[in-house]
Amino acid sequence: METTLKTIKQPLTDLEIANRAELRPIVDIAEKAGIPEEAVEQYGRYKAKIDVKKLPKTTKNGKVVLVTAISPTPAGEGKSTVTVGLADALSQLGNQTMVALREPSLGPVMGMKGGAAGGGYSQVVPMEEINLHFTGDLHAITTANNALSALIDNHIHRGNSLNIDPRRITWKRVLDMNDRALRHITVGLGGPANGVPREDGFDITVASEIMAILCLAKDIDDLRTRLSNIVIGYTYDKEPVYVKDLDVQGALTLLLKDALKPNIVQTIGGTPAMIHGGPFANIAHGCNSLMATLTAKKLSDIVVTEAGFGSDLGAEKFMNIKSRQGGFQPDAVVIVATVRALKMHGGVPKDKLKAENVQAIVAGLPNMKKHIETIREFGIEPVIALNRFTADTENELNAVMGWCHDNGVKAAITEVWEHGGTGGLELGKAVMQQLDQHVDFQFLYDVEDAFEDKVRKIVQKVYGGQDIHFTDQALKQLVDIKRNGWDVLPVCMAKTQYSFSDDPKLLGRPEGFTITVRELIPKLGAGFIVCLTGDIMTMPGLPKVPAAMNMDVDHEGNAVGLM
Amino acid sequence: METTLKTIKQPLTDLEIANRAELRPIVDIAEKAGIPEEAVEQYGRYKAKIDVKKLPKTTKNGKVVLVTAISPTPAGEGKSTVTVGLADALSQLGNQTMVALREPSLGPVMGMKGGAAGGGYSQVVPMEEINLHFTGDLHAITTANNALSALIDNHIHRGNSLNIDPRRITWKRVLDMNDRALRHITVGLGGPANGVPREDGFDITVASEIMAILCLAKDIDDLRTRLSNIVIGYTYDKEPVYVKDLDVQGALTLLLKDALKPNIVQTIGGTPAMIHGGPFANIAHGCNSLMATLTAKKLSDIVVTEAGFGSDLGAEKFMNIKSRQGGFQPDAVVIVATVRALKMHGGVPKDKLKAENVQAIVAGLPNMKKHIETIREFGIEPVIALNRFTADTENELNAVMGWCHDNGVKAAITEVWEHGGTGGLELGKAVMQQLDQHVDFQFLYDVEDAFEDKVRKIVQKVYGGQDIHFTDQALKQLVDIKRNGWDVLPVCMAKTQYSFSDDPKLLGRPEGFTITVRELIPKLGAGFIVCLTGDIMTMPGLPKVPAAMNMDVDHEGNAVGLM
Repeated sequence: METTLKTIKQPLTDLEIANRAELRPIVDIAEKAGIPEEAVEQYGRYKAKIDVKKLPKTTKNGKVVLVTAISPTPAGEGKSTVTVGLADALSQLGNQTMVALREPSLGPVMGMKGGAAGGGYSQVVPMEEINLHFTGDLHAITTANNALSALIDNHIHRGNSLNIDPRRITWKRVLDMNDRALRHITVGLGGPANGVPREDGFDITVASEIMAILCLAKDIDDLRTRLSNIVIGYTYDKEPVYVKDLDVQGALTLLLKDALKPNIVQTIGGTPAMIHGGPFANIAHGCNSLMATLTAKKLSDIVVTEAGFGSDLGAEKFMNIKSRQGGFQPDAVVIVATVRALKMHGGVPKDKLKAENVQAIVAGLPNMKKHIETIREFGIEPVIALNRFTADTENELNAVMGWCHDNGVKAAITEVWEHGGTGGLELGKAVMQQLDQHVDFQFLYDVEDAFEDKVRKIVQKVYGGQDIHFTDQALKQLVDIKRNGWDVLPVCMAKTQYSFSDDPKLLGRPEGFTITVRELIPKLGAGFIVCLTGDIMTMPGLPKVPAAMNMDVDHEGNAVGLM
Repeated sequence: METTLKTIKQPLTDLEIANRAELRPIVDIAEKAGIPEEAVEQYGRYKAKIDVKKLPKTTKNGKVVLVTAISPTPAGEGKSTVTVGLADALSQLGNQTMVALREPSLGPVMGMKGGAAGGGYSQVVPMEEINLHFTGDLHAITTANNALSALIDNHIHRGNSLNIDPRRITWKRVLDMNDRALRHITVGLGGPANGVPREDGFDITVASEIMAILCLAKDIDDLRTRLSNIVIGYTYDKEPVYVKDLDVQGALTLLLKDALKPNIVQTIGGTPAMIHGGPFANIAHGCNSLMATLTAKKLSDIVVTEAGFGSDLGAEKFMNIKSRQGGFQPDAVVIVATVRALKMHGGVPKDKLKAENVQAIVAGLPNMKKHIETIREFGIEPVIALNRFTADTENELNAVMGWCHDNGVKAAITEVWEHGGTGGLELGKAVMQQLDQHVDFQFLYDVEDAFEDKVRKIVQKVYGGQDIHFTDQALKQLVDIKRNGWDVLPVCMAKTQYSFSDDPKLLGRPEGFTITVRELIPKLGAGFIVCLTGDIMTMPGLPKVPAAMNMDVDHEGNAVGLM
């Protein structure tokens, strides 16, 4: 293995690997997944939407493997890559498998990240189409979000019979773009013909409540009901104003009717992949759509899916929000860790990661240990996927695997970037063993718990913190939330992904900390109350040299410069 | 005929007619049009993009029939409906025919108009998909336009090495939405992390120069060149700043690579229809894409296409801009007129249009006569399509047809809304006769003419006006345009569509008027200089009761309330 790695002088980019993959027509992939042709709406040759109404009735109810990670670091952990590689491995091991992922946001593609569809030989393809406009879901969400904004401003301009206070409109416009200049703007300038002047701002599309709604809706009627329940702001009397008051939920539903249909593509290994929905993992719940996950459960024996960031954010919300609303539970959980990230949690700066440093790994392991404990709080015994990078040494890998062995934690080294599913067979076997175990799943809190108790349980059991503190502003908002009866909703924590605490600099396993809740944002359509802790960015900016600078189209019409 | 009309008590809506139409799979329509399967990229079952690189070589060079109209009035003329009906009629008459239309903008669909894909039994289908997200072209243009905006603001925020003057950025953001509150905004507020504060505004997507560019590009390399030539603003030294200075033309091309491929759908009558691109007919040239028209010419004997508004706007630009850049010419021109519109030009207000009024028609005919003269200026003898509405009386229809007969103008009554192609057979025959005639086509001006002379020729020969007047601002801009060597580009007039003059209230055939040019806007990517006359709206607003209020999705997942 080591030899093979060294002979690769100039490894191919993800895009090059994706472009060299031999794709099968999506109708063949769909047929293999048990999807009849009449349910397949092709978008080009290699991607399609599924009309779930046309799927055959089935009693199949596949098991769900959730892939999460230790606290992310700039070193990278490769969670999507492991998710795809594990699905391919499970396919190779004879299971009818499907992978369910979030769809990438175009804004970050133009900015920092390039693409987001796995990596190396564990990618979903066609990579460039998935990373650009795909099947238009994000564009539909942008359109619905901004149609609502235009309808709100038009309502005020045309007499404001609902008595909406323009200073208390909480519904913002969105673009699928990293555009810091749109964070804080004033609109309606230039005289009476141009509406009522007010402060506003744009978020990135994945931060739109409509994205969260699309990802939690069970069908088109549920979608309409959720859209009608969105609170867009407050009247001069501080009463909430709903979309149903504006009576435009029908138009928004119409704009979203095709976006609600799950998308199917394939992995390089040929496993069917549902890529659908991609809400932020901080101010939203950070998982692909419920429609995709539930559809995949009906079509396969094992569904491999992921949730955003570490187990403290994405996985917690996967269980307490998505699983609860969807009426299912994960049957196994994989925690992705890397030698590099553990070294950073052990105190090594990013530019010193290449040198072997077993001591730093040992110092960083408490972070992984806490993630294991967190998953156990839900009644599930996790499996560690140690995702190997080329610079990792045997001593370093042994340090992690040895710790797992000594502490009775199932673990496997994965080499899925380089070898696809074949590099994930050990992990696949470990997961299959785990799926044979009985799981006594439990939510962390009941929705009927007092609101503060729900937050405290997350902080204590998931983050390992000591207590919570609500700012005066948050306390005031909580009074209003209770008065409106909204406190029975689940909690959606918005916290830095870099630390269990609300201080991004506290890596490893901080203890004894208090989480400060600064602001509460009711998301009545999505069905949760966002708890803001620390600064959460809902509109990213572009870096000094945006990824866009390297992009182009070659003479064959193929993308160049997507990473 | 008259009897049939009266028995229809409750005529079906356009959406109901479209939904009841039996559509053929788009691969069958494409095959009928001579498009091999490998060139067809399906978007669902009934729409597709065409990869023109995969079309077979052919020497076919179909004739082009341009459909234009008399000066539009609120009474409506049904130009798209006649375009579709004529194409179906020509198909019925044994010609291999294709129709090429603009794609609708979603913003107006939510606002005033409902859909825009013909009407009655002369529609392109699937109507609801064409009117909503279609194949995502407008979303791609929105994204590319706003990516450029974000990259400009990021450049300034990151040190502004190009010395761009934030007060002189002419590149605006866009949304495919009627949203008056975004016309005039300030961006970059909230402190140094959020960019540089400046004035900005959003146009509707169809007003983006990128839309005009997409519609005039011959291939992907031409697209990239045009994008690189866009002027986004000026430096502090008042020198133009191009996209190529920012070096992001590659990324913009990548975002547009699929949008550049023409879309194919079908008419209710089964004629293949290219629907691709839809630039504004005032500040841009108002025709579907050159790619669609030229592709249709290679695939059919007759291409029926249209241009925005009356012959003074869309047709003039079709000839002087689109045909010139595309290296082809129209072989016949149809001018659509209606009894109702002629009555309005004859002085009848909108609420009195139902009463028979032959005298008003006679008073309105000079408007039609001037449109006939305008088309003759290009060396083409037009055919009048008198598009019948149910309330039109025999006396009224006879008044128009009699005038045409007496003046040696070919004319036919069309009933295409109610009868599809069968209602356009007379028009089809007249057009076929005209296509047998020799055409001695001529442009109205040479691009080498002095800039003022180009404008004057349009005003005198096309509008029938007396002279031109440039405001001081326009004169100053003309000096800069000449200094930069841009005055050799064609002229794109931005004028009210309601009158030959720049005063929308002067209906009929005004004479002796002067056109005031208020402002010149260089569009170096599109390849023309816009001459603004009067107030031109580039971001519409929503009406008191937006069309969105009536929209929804029924239990079968079909659209409700699109008009």
